[in-house]
Amino acid sequence: MKRNLNEILDRLKRVPQIIMPEDASMILAKTGVPTDAKIVDAGSGSGFLSIFLAWYCPNGKVVTYEKRMEFAEVVKKNIEKTGLKNIEVKNKNILDGIDEDKLDLITLDMKDCEKVISEAYEKLNQGGWLAVYSPYVEQVEKVIEDMRKSNFNEIKCFENISREWQSEYGFTRPKSQGLMHTGWLTFGKK
Amino acid sequence: MKRNLNEILDRLKRVPQIIMPEDASMILAKTGVPTDAKIVDAGSGSGFLSIFLAWYCPNGKVVTYEKRMEFAEVVKKNIEKTGLKNIEVKNKNILDGIDEDKLDLITLDMKDCEKVISEAYEKLNQGGWLAVYSPYVEQVEKVIEDMRKSNFNEIKCFENISREWQSEYGFTRPKSQGLMHTGWLTFGKK
Amino acid sequence: MKRNLNEILDRLKRVPQIIMPEDASMILAKTGVPTDAKIVDAGSGSGFLSIFLAWYCPNGKVVTYEKRMEFAEVVKKNIEKTGLKNIEVKNKNILDGIDEDKLDLITLDMKDCEKVISEAYEKLNQGGWLAVYSPYVEQVEKVIEDMRKSNFNEIKCFENISREWQSEYGFTRPKSQGLMHTGWLTFGKK
Amino acid sequence: MKRNLNEILDRLKRVPQIIMPEDASMILAKTGVPTDAKIVDAGSGSGFLSIFLAWYCPNGKVVTYEKRMEFAEVVKKNIEKTGLKNIEVKNKNILDGIDEDKLDLITLDMKDCEKVISEAYEKLNQGGWLAVYSPYVEQVEKVIEDMRKSNFNEIKCFENISREWQSEYGFTRPKSQGLMHTGWLTFGKK
Repeated sequence: MKRNLNEILDRLKRVPQIIMPEDASMILAKTGVPTDAKIVDAGSGSGFLSIFLAWYCPNGKVVTYEKRMEFAEVVKKNIEKTGLKNIEVKNKNILDGIDEDKLDLITLDMKDCEKVISEAYEKLNQGGWLAVYSPYVEQVEKVIEDMRKSNFNEIKCFENISREWQSEYGFTRPKSQGLMHTGWLTFGKK
Repeated sequence: MKRNLNEILDRLKRVPQIIMPEDASMILAKTGVPTDAKIVDAGSGSGFLSIFLAWYCPNGKVVTYEKRMEFAEVVKKNIEKTGLKNIEVKNKNILDGIDEDKLDLITLDMKDCEKVISEAYEKLNQGGWLAVYSPYVEQVEKVIEDMRKSNFNEIKCFENISREWQSEYGFTRPKSQGLMHTGWLTFGKK
Repeated sequence: MKRNLNEILDRLKRVPQIIMPEDASMILAKTGVPTDAKIVDAGSGSGFLSIFLAWYCPNGKVVTYEKRMEFAEVVKKNIEKTGLKNIEVKNKNILDGIDEDKLDLITLDMKDCEKVISEAYEKLNQGGWLAVYSPYVEQVEKVIEDMRKSNFNEIKCFENISREWQSEYGFTRPKSQGLMHTGWLTFGKK
Repeated sequence: MKRNLNEILDRLKRVPQIIMPEDASMILAKTGVPTDAKIVDAGSGSGFLSIFLAWYCPNGKVVTYEKRMEFAEVVKKNIEKTGLKNIEVKNKNILDGIDEDKLDLITLDMKDCEKVISEAYEKLNQGGWLAVYSPYVEQVEKVIEDMRKSNFNEIKCFENISREWQSEYGFTRPKSQGLMHTGWLTFGKK
């Protein structure tokens, strides 16, 4: 019996703010990155985004940067449980420099991420994508502005609202309570 | 230079009602199918969903059923342009029987799809997922009811609203006009 | 010091399913009924909708039908606390007949409300509006179909999603949790 | 035959950015202002908001400020067509001072509206409400911050998404295209 990613994710340790699979999958939808993509991700958080990307880019490689030692340890253990071999965790602040280059995708989910946008541009392949996750709208403004300054193309920003529905005995409606908002995803292409 | 799926999709022929990458990616988010998944899809439409799934399941195989000869031809040509080798098009009505078994995922986007739900259950692996796309809410009611009758577990239904935002010179807001609705995605697990 | 309606509503007794002021106010937005409107409402529920309409139609009159004696008593007490003199509570099932005629607005929030739609048409003034609140989508289908059969014009149906936002110290975003759905409002004009 | 407000509004002259009845009615829903409310509104725009408020507060009075002479003339003509006698148009910039006091409601829909928030507080009755309409999220941030500084209570901000639905021959779904966003409404109470 094969394993689905979601069953694996359900058993992993979580830190408070995580990127949900719904938002992670939007990155595939909006960029269409190839499955041998070379990807850099920062900060790792619980590692959910790196794991999702590594899962669906099995012939690629994900390097995830996490500056806090204790978080980096959580991520390493989470990755171990998935069995994925194509993720590397670096206990390093990405603001101190991106070691990799010729990247197909860079994903950022961190404070001050706008400080790394111009370097991200340098380290991407032509046609490569930068995807930034922002929980607050003020960050969206800065990210879009800085992507423009760094010459990114096809800049676009999305907010995703996913409503669950229920249907029983011929009575169908959206569930009353639910997640009204997760965050914004902003994309730019080199 | 590597190619992104989205650039390829932009150049393909489209029939009126297509599953957008945003909805296709939700299937990955909600099921987490493995990249060596054995997948059956019906009806093919323009082939966008099969192509998306085959792209992100490069070690798996997608068989897509399309009963209308002329549509099956469009799909074949679209697949050819993608270079993907792991999709097979069958010019056959899936209501006449699913030839494959031990499947990890079955996706249905067609009228009368509820007639194939109980057979879908038989042809899935334990832990495999059925995902049904429905443009109308009456179909959602039938699909959920028939998934229950066929003993599917973890039945859940989602509607996705994706809003694009714009930001210029410090003025940020959602775009006024946009796609208010695509369809519903209903999931059931064996 | 004048009193605002919301402070009054906060102190009233509530039954489980109530029409919120947001949905009640949509009835004013979509119909624009005059403030001397003659209105019939059924069933009363907690009386919130009748109270809202009577408040903003101070020169009009609202008659509200409630078949359950104990609910009718709750509504009477709620109305008393508002001080409004232009609402009459009838402890009667509206399916047994609408006593009033030459109405400017009829609002229905009850099971089987489709059974009263053709009579509603008879009892409305030319240019008068019927507004139906439905918690389930199957009711919406029936209501729209029956409004068509009864020759209503300008039939339109809306769902309202109201998101609350928070902003502190320059961090702005929608509140994560909230009411994803209340119900549908369907309108028809004579 | 009585006239509905919506039929009247449909025949009025419009300037580009207008507050729709849906947003105007939210002001009634969220504040519950009495129908003898004393209201100040700025800037007038096409006068739609003043007209809506004057319509549903027939025993009250609305004073609307519009600094641009040519717009003030449009508003005057629009009001004339409605037959409403309880609106006064002032061709004056509200930033030069609010002449009225003991107000129950002040509504602002204008650039730089944050400059009038502290004076608005002074001119409101205890229990009176300020409602600010903002098309851009940066304005929301400033408005909430300045309402806090001016000691407003019960500060709350909402965004309203109204989706139209269609149903024909048993096929029901939201209309695909529609208004994804109008603006934000921020409320504060004295």
